Amino acid sequence: MELIIGPRLFSTWSLRAWLVLRRAGAVFATREVWYRSEAEKAELRRLSPSGFVPLLKVEGETIWDTLAIGEWAAERYPAAKLWPVDPTARALARSATAEMHSGFAALRDLCGMSPGHPIAGEARSTAPSDPGLDRELARLVELWTQMRGRFGAGGPWLFGDWSIADAFFTPVAARVRHYQIDLSAHGDDGTAAAYVAALLAQPHFREWEAAALSSNVD
Amino acid sequence: MELIIGPRLFSTWSLRAWLVLRRAGAVFATREVWYRSEAEKAELRRLSPSGFVPLLKVEGETIWDTLAIGEWAAERYPAAKLWPVDPTARALARSATAEMHSGFAALRDLCGMSPGHPIAGEARSTAPSDPGLDRELARLVELWTQMRGRFGAGGPWLFGDWSIADAFFTPVAARVRHYQIDLSAHGDDGTAAAYVAALLAQPHFREWEAAALSSNVD
Repeated sequence: MELIIGPRLFSTWSLRAWLVLRRAGAVFATREVWYRSEAEKAELRRLSPSGFVPLLKVEGETIWDTLAIGEWAAERYPAAKLWPVDPTARALARSATAEMHSGFAALRDLCGMSPGHPIAGEARSTAPSDPGLDRELARLVELWTQMRGRFGAGGPWLFGDWSIADAFFTPVAARVRHYQIDLSAHGDDGTAAAYVAALLAQPHFREWEAAALSSNVD
Repeated sequence: MELIIGPRLFSTWSLRAWLVLRRAGAVFATREVWYRSEAEKAELRRLSPSGFVPLLKVEGETIWDTLAIGEWAAERYPAAKLWPVDPTARALARSATAEMHSGFAALRDLCGMSPGHPIAGEARSTAPSDPGLDRELARLVELWTQMRGRFGAGGPWLFGDWSIADAFFTPVAARVRHYQIDLSAHGDDGTAAAYVAALLAQPHFREWEAAALSSNVD
């Protein structure tokens, strides 16, 4: 099994899929593909039916979307409980995950992982002032606070045990840190900030981060 | 159970969720919410945690994303086989569905369902010339042709039996018709055009279309 990822420094979707597979306990190789040169872009087009990363190569097949990789892993590794066991929590975890999958365009456009290597531990930038971004940050604070309050059971994650939803919000935590976003200005009572801290402290995330920071991007 | 939808004429995501629930055999009410006036927008914000539609209200809970509604329905109505039974076909159906869920931005931006009521049977517009749109149309043709060729088993759908993936591409078919898009100019050997025709001929889609066209939008 092989996970084809984009640059660890920049590719938030690759990070999400990788976190899920690590949590699942899957044994897999990771291949990092860049897309700076024409040769690299041609290689990516050859590998990827959609033109995007990540891709999971398994048993001769290619699963070509992060959420589909997550659902595949949830089925293949049931003991890892990648989705909540409770049906209601599971439906809401999927809603939150899917909202991240298709939404938060301002956050993704304006606070990209690309410039300045925001995955790095030190804060290096500030978020632009933008009403759409403000709305999205307020929505994230609301969502995280509600789900942790209802399902978090006093633990760090949104739905009790760690779930795919937590993988999906991990790159958001990296952005909040990098862009020095004060979530209390967006309605946070401290719950969202604690969640961000928990995401950043995940051993698997730390492992990814260390590999990313060792990349030669010059 | 109640499905809260946007205007039938415009809301492609509402159509997708509705098709899935009808296929599942679910018994549900449908409430159409518009968002023209400030009062309507306030009502939508009250109903919808994300600000988007559709929403499925079930047993006191709100599932707030179309793909999450699909996964919920697939679990709740297993006899409807909303995903392919074969694990490989299922993983690829989820990949295709998720690619639609998060992608095809040019198609969605440039060929919106909103202007000119593209759900209507008669062609009323033409697609703008845009390289991104061209790439996406070529990708759709490629995807549909590959999946029908591999899994379609000579039938009309992408993965053999009708699946959530077909629901997700139904609004694309409405756009292809409305914008008079010639798929053969994007690599189609006729397979994609036949798929579009099959999607448009679905009785459930025709039922939705008839209800949409009876809307008073003046």
